[in-house]
Parts: sequence; C-alpha cells; structure tokens
Amino acid sequence: MVNKRYKEMLEHKSVIRELSEYATARGQEIGYENVFDYSLGNPSVPVPQDYTDAVIRLHQETEPVQLHGYSPSLGDTEVRGIVASSLEKRFGIPYETRHIFMASGAAGALSHALRIVTEPGDEIILFAPFFPEYIPYTKGAGLIPKIVEADFFSFQINFDAFKALLTEKVSAVLINSPNNPSGIVYSEETLKKLVSILEKAEKKYGHEIFLISDEPYREIVFDGAKTPYPSKYYKNTLSCYSFSKSLSLPGERIGYVAVNPEAKDADLLAVMCGQVSREIGHNCPAKTSQLGVAAVIDETADLSIYETNMNLIYDCLLGLGFEVVRPGGTFYIMPKALEADSIAFCKKALKYDLIFVPADNFGAPGYFRMAYCIDTEKVVRSLNRIREFVKAEYPNR
Amino acid sequence: MVNKRYKEMLEHKSVIRELSEYATARGQEIGYENVFDYSLGNPSVPVPQDYTDAVIRLHQETEPVQLHGYSPSLGDTEVRGIVASSLEKRFGIPYETRHIFMASGAAGALSHALRIVTEPGDEIILFAPFFPEYIPYTKGAGLIPKIVEADFFSFQINFDAFKALLTEKVSAVLINSPNNPSGIVYSEETLKKLVSILEKAEKKYGHEIFLISDEPYREIVFDGAKTPYPSKYYKNTLSCYSFSKSLSLPGERIGYVAVNPEAKDADLLAVMCGQVSREIGHNCPAKTSQLGVAAVIDETADLSIYETNMNLIYDCLLGLGFEVVRPGGTFYIMPKALEADSIAFCKKALKYDLIFVPADNFGAPGYFRMAYCIDTEKVVRSLNRIREFVKAEYPNR
Repeated sequence: MVNKRYKEMLEHKSVIRELSEYATARGQEIGYENVFDYSLGNPSVPVPQDYTDAVIRLHQETEPVQLHGYSPSLGDTEVRGIVASSLEKRFGIPYETRHIFMASGAAGALSHALRIVTEPGDEIILFAPFFPEYIPYTKGAGLIPKIVEADFFSFQINFDAFKALLTEKVSAVLINSPNNPSGIVYSEETLKKLVSILEKAEKKYGHEIFLISDEPYREIVFDGAKTPYPSKYYKNTLSCYSFSKSLSLPGERIGYVAVNPEAKDADLLAVMCGQVSREIGHNCPAKTSQLGVAAVIDETADLSIYETNMNLIYDCLLGLGFEVVRPGGTFYIMPKALEADSIAFCKKALKYDLIFVPADNFGAPGYFRMAYCIDTEKVVRSLNRIREFVKAEYPNR
Repeated sequence: MVNKRYKEMLEHKSVIRELSEYATARGQEIGYENVFDYSLGNPSVPVPQDYTDAVIRLHQETEPVQLHGYSPSLGDTEVRGIVASSLEKRFGIPYETRHIFMASGAAGALSHALRIVTEPGDEIILFAPFFPEYIPYTKGAGLIPKIVEADFFSFQINFDAFKALLTEKVSAVLINSPNNPSGIVYSEETLKKLVSILEKAEKKYGHEIFLISDEPYREIVFDGAKTPYPSKYYKNTLSCYSFSKSLSLPGERIGYVAVNPEAKDADLLAVMCGQVSREIGHNCPAKTSQLGVAAVIDETADLSIYETNMNLIYDCLLGLGFEVVRPGGTFYIMPKALEADSIAFCKKALKYDLIFVPADNFGAPGYFRMAYCIDTEKVVRSLNRIREFVKAEYPNR
C-alpha cells in the first residue's frame, strides 16, 4: 500500500526549492547572469586542486578491487584515524579512530547522532533560527522537536526560553554554529552558559543530555576569528561535520560524527552508529570520497570570497536601513524584511530578479535569508538592484 | 541518553564479520594466500577500465563547482534518464526519468522502497533463505517481517507456506533473485505463480501488495541464461538495484529504485523516496559515482570468473557427496553441512583454513554459504583442502 504520510509530504513543497526552480526558469528566459539568485547554499568556489589530483591518482594507481571494495561499516579505518588526528591537532581533544564514524554529509551524520543518544518519543531542543530540515531529521528519528524562540537582538541563544523547555523529557540539544540561516557564530560566552545549564540539568534529571553540534560551516568564519569548538566545553558532545562547504564537495556526501572521548559510553557510540546504518540502509560514504578528503584533511577551498560578499551586502543593507545582525561566518545573512509579511516582501523582490528566501520556515518570521555563495561580480551588480527594489517598493522608509 | 536498543545490538555481532575478522587475523599469521576465505561477498574482478577512465576524465575536464555540486534529491536528472532508457531497452518497460530514484547501493534502495509502499506496523513477507540484513532493514522501516520457510529441495518458493502467511496485514513482499545465499535464480514459472497469488490477494484484500525486488545479482547468471525480470510480470513492482556486484563497485554505494510505470501512483513513488531521504538523512549517492556509472550503464565487469569458480566448487562438492542445489547465478553456493549443526561443521572447517559461513541466520539451518568471489587459482587450491577436511572429519560418509 502506498504510504500516506510520505504522499502528503509532497504537497508541502520546499519554499527554497520552489524559489530556486523559479530562478532557473527565469534564468533561461533572461539569461542566468541577470537573475540574482540568493536562494541556495551551493558553494561557489572550487575544491582545492590537491583533492582533484588525489582522486585522479587514486583511480590511476590503486588496484580497482581494493579501491572500490567495501569499507567497514564505520568507514575506512585509516581515514577515520586521519580525521581523529586532525581534530586532535586542531582542538586538543584526544580523539582516536574509535571515536569517528564516517557519514554521508551532515545529514547522514545527524541522522546517526540523533538516534544513538535518544529513545524514540524523547524531546530534543532546537534553537531558532534553524535549518528547516531539522524538523524531518528529528521527527524521522522518532523525536519531538521543541523550538527555543530566537533572540532576535543577537541571534545568540534566548536562554530564558531555553530553560523553560529543558524538561526531564529532553535527551539531546541540537546546535548549529556558525548558523544557517543567520550567519551568527555562538560566542564562547554563549557556549559556556549553554553548557552550565546542561550540566545542571543532567544532575537534576539524573541522565545525560547530549549536545549534538552540527558544524558544516565550522571553517567559514570572518574577521580572522575562530569558531569556538563546542566539544571543548562539554564532554557529552557529538560533533557532526560535513566537507560539503569547507571543501566545496556537497555532491559527494561526505562527513563524519566525532564522539568526545570523555562522553558517556564514548567507546561504543561510533560503533552504535554502525547499527543505526543497518536500519536506515546507509552503508558509508563513497570509498573514493573518503580517501579523497583524507588526502586533503587540513585544507579548505578558498573561502575568502564569502567574507568579501558578506561585507558588500551587509554594508549595502545597513545603508538602506535594514535591521540586520552582522554574520560572523557561513555564507548566509538574515535581515529583517521591510514589511511584517516576509513572503510578500520576497515576492516583491522577485520583480527585480532578486531571489530571497523568507525565513519563516527557519523559525524567524518577518526575516529573510540571502545565501551569498555566488560570484562577487554578481553580488556587486545585485546591490544596485537591491537599492532600486527598496526605493521603488518601500519609498517612505 | 544513550540509546538502549542500539547498544544491545552490539552484543549480537555478525557471524560473517567475525569469521572474516578471524580470516584476516589468520592470514597475517600464515599468509593470506593460505587462508581459503569464502566468507565475504566482496567482488574480486576489477571495474571496467571505461569506468575508471570516465571518472578520471570527469575530474580532469568538468568544472569542479559543477562536478561536485548538490544533485537534486532524487539523483542527477540526466543520470536518472540514462538508467530509465537502459532499462527500457533491456526489458521493454517504458521507464522514464520520473520512475527512477538514485540510491546508495541496494541497502539505500531498499530502505526507501520499503518505506514508500508500507505503513509502520504492516507485515512484509521474506522468503528463506534470505540475506540476514533484511531483518534490520524491514524492522528499521517499522515493519513486521514474516518469513516463508525455504523449499529445501529447489530453493525456489515454498508456495504453501507463502499462502499461509499472505494475510490482509501484508503490504509488501520482498524477493531476491538471483539469491544470496543460495545462488538460485527464480524461474519464470516461479515468478508467474508468485504473481498470480499476489494478484488474487490484492483483489481479495482490496489493497495493493507491492513486490520489492532486490536485484544486485541480476547480471551474474550462468549457462548463458537471463534472469527473468520480476517487474515484467507484476505492475506493482519496485526494482532495487546496486552496481556493487555488476561493476565491482561496492565501496562507491551506488544503485537505484525503478518504479514500474504502471504501478499504483507510479508518478509519485520516486518523488516520495525523496521525502524518505529527508527523514533518514540520506541525500543521494556521490555525484561522481552517479556520473561514473551512467558513463558505463550497459557494461559489466568480467563476471565469467564466478561461473568458472561455481563449476569447480559444485563438481567438487557433488563428488564428495554433499547435498547441494546448483546455483544459477551470483557468487554464492549453499550446500547442506555434513552434520546437523552447521556451526560445528564450519568450526571444524576452520582447522583446515576453510572459512565457510553457517546459513542459520539466512533462514537455512543446517546449511552453509560459500562466497566464491575469489581468484580461481585459489579456488583450485582450496578443493584439495576441502577433500582433506571432509575425509578427516567425516570419514564414514
């Protein structure tokens, strides 16, 4: 029998995808260079040449049966070791091979992490604004997402709202810093306060509350800053990573879960991920992608363009009187729309071939998201269009 | 909180994996060439050079941002079209792009197929002997597996047992031909009888009963025969495929679901797979693997070695008086052990460095599986060892 729920889900199409399809169609009409598509988070800078060279060399030099053979269910053992060493070197946490589980991008990493530290029916806390796919990810793991309202002033954490939701039923807390959609990076102060609340709650309720940290934007930070690494502050942390953004490899679906070596059952959690895989039919990322990223583990694509773009856009928006928090990283910015109805706002922008995404689904009604992973030249051209749009549609500001 | 069930699952280690680990350890001791490891289904012939060339060319010639960009959630559209055309050409079923969902190997294909045509709590029928991972696959989709006892004479279908289990609660039936572990190929007669029973049951119960056909061994058939294609016989069929065995690419995790164009809701089912992905955190196979297999869609690795190996082993076993059904395909054979306790039998074989897998977990207690995807030279050397083992341990046969 055809499943009812998945069939019904088809009726709720993703706003981002619809806008992106509109942009593609409009591009075919007037030339893609004339559509200012800020809808999609698809990296716009190439993977480092070292990656390409490594993958070519693997195909030229490795015996194919070995190269394309099954990897163990937790990922290629050597690759896991390379990930562990790299993390240890960077963050001073003594990760070993057994703490790493190779996953199909951040989505794959989260789907495993969510399941190993919760029971179906438990509550999990999300912080607005958040990536909308967290809803199917958490519900798919049998969890009940509880959403902490945003701190609209800073997009750090609204701690009062958080404390109110942190009941005994909560077994995990999901954070995402640097954040999609706001571009905000949680400060060390925010993390310390978060951790202190979690530690108290663990004691009070007598069970662990795991911190699941979704970190695909870890490497994209501005002003020479570094993202504080959540696992440094809280031992019951699972760090979920993807190479999609740092290496510009979203199509290759490669990432990992790193279990803090001092977490409860730390030596079992990665192995348990392998058991989750058996139930959700996920058996490792592609072997060649695993070997490819291992060859360039400490490299990134040239991510500087995102900071250049951010500064151009931020200054322009500020000049036009937008209310906007300056991003500390990622390639997103989330200004407040110029009218209460952000969907109406984004629809008006379409007339100027500006593709913005209403942030209502991200837990930030009245705001919109711009993904500025596009060529700087195009960003520059878009600024005049943004000015034109604002002056024509909102003349009395 | 650490999940209890996944933690408990760790205590039930896979017999295959334990044996394979033993074989590796023993190999380090006495030289891997002296261990006759028939435990693992890891292909032993190289991927066609055309695949390697295509992947190298993709990396050399395609603009990296495009090459490694996100593919749409159902898979690269062009690749889906290439799969559809190839299937149409081979099997005369008018598949189109919209009927194809690209998946991470057969495990990924099954995890999606199982969820779109059932509701949690439904029953699904499996036929012994079966791949043991079908248990977590089906349970992970919230289903109750009902196992049809084997027809130990032919390893085709035990139809009386099947009819007894085909109640109103059954929403899907999972078959696997050519079969792991028996190597048997369902005959056209078997398929027709199966279909006639399913069609009657659909009418009687007033709902569809989908046939989920797991076909990773479709291309590995012996004696110049062809595997009858189940979807030709029954419209409510989802064909789940993997390139792991036909192209020797198990580590790349690439396969698909092909929805019969006449199935109920045929135009929605592949799209619904995309919704399943959102919940289980699976976002497409690696882009370069998708493009790679599309470049060699009608090729296979040189699979003839498996038939050579099968004939050698089959003749030897028959000569030694084993009860064994001759495989029609795959790289497996499943003889009856020489004592009732197949685990004891396999343990005795270990003394001769022969690694066999007891088939109890495959729904065939008293039998054992040999995976003969190893070099023919090694198969030949193993035959004397098998004779030695049988004569020493079972002298009175």
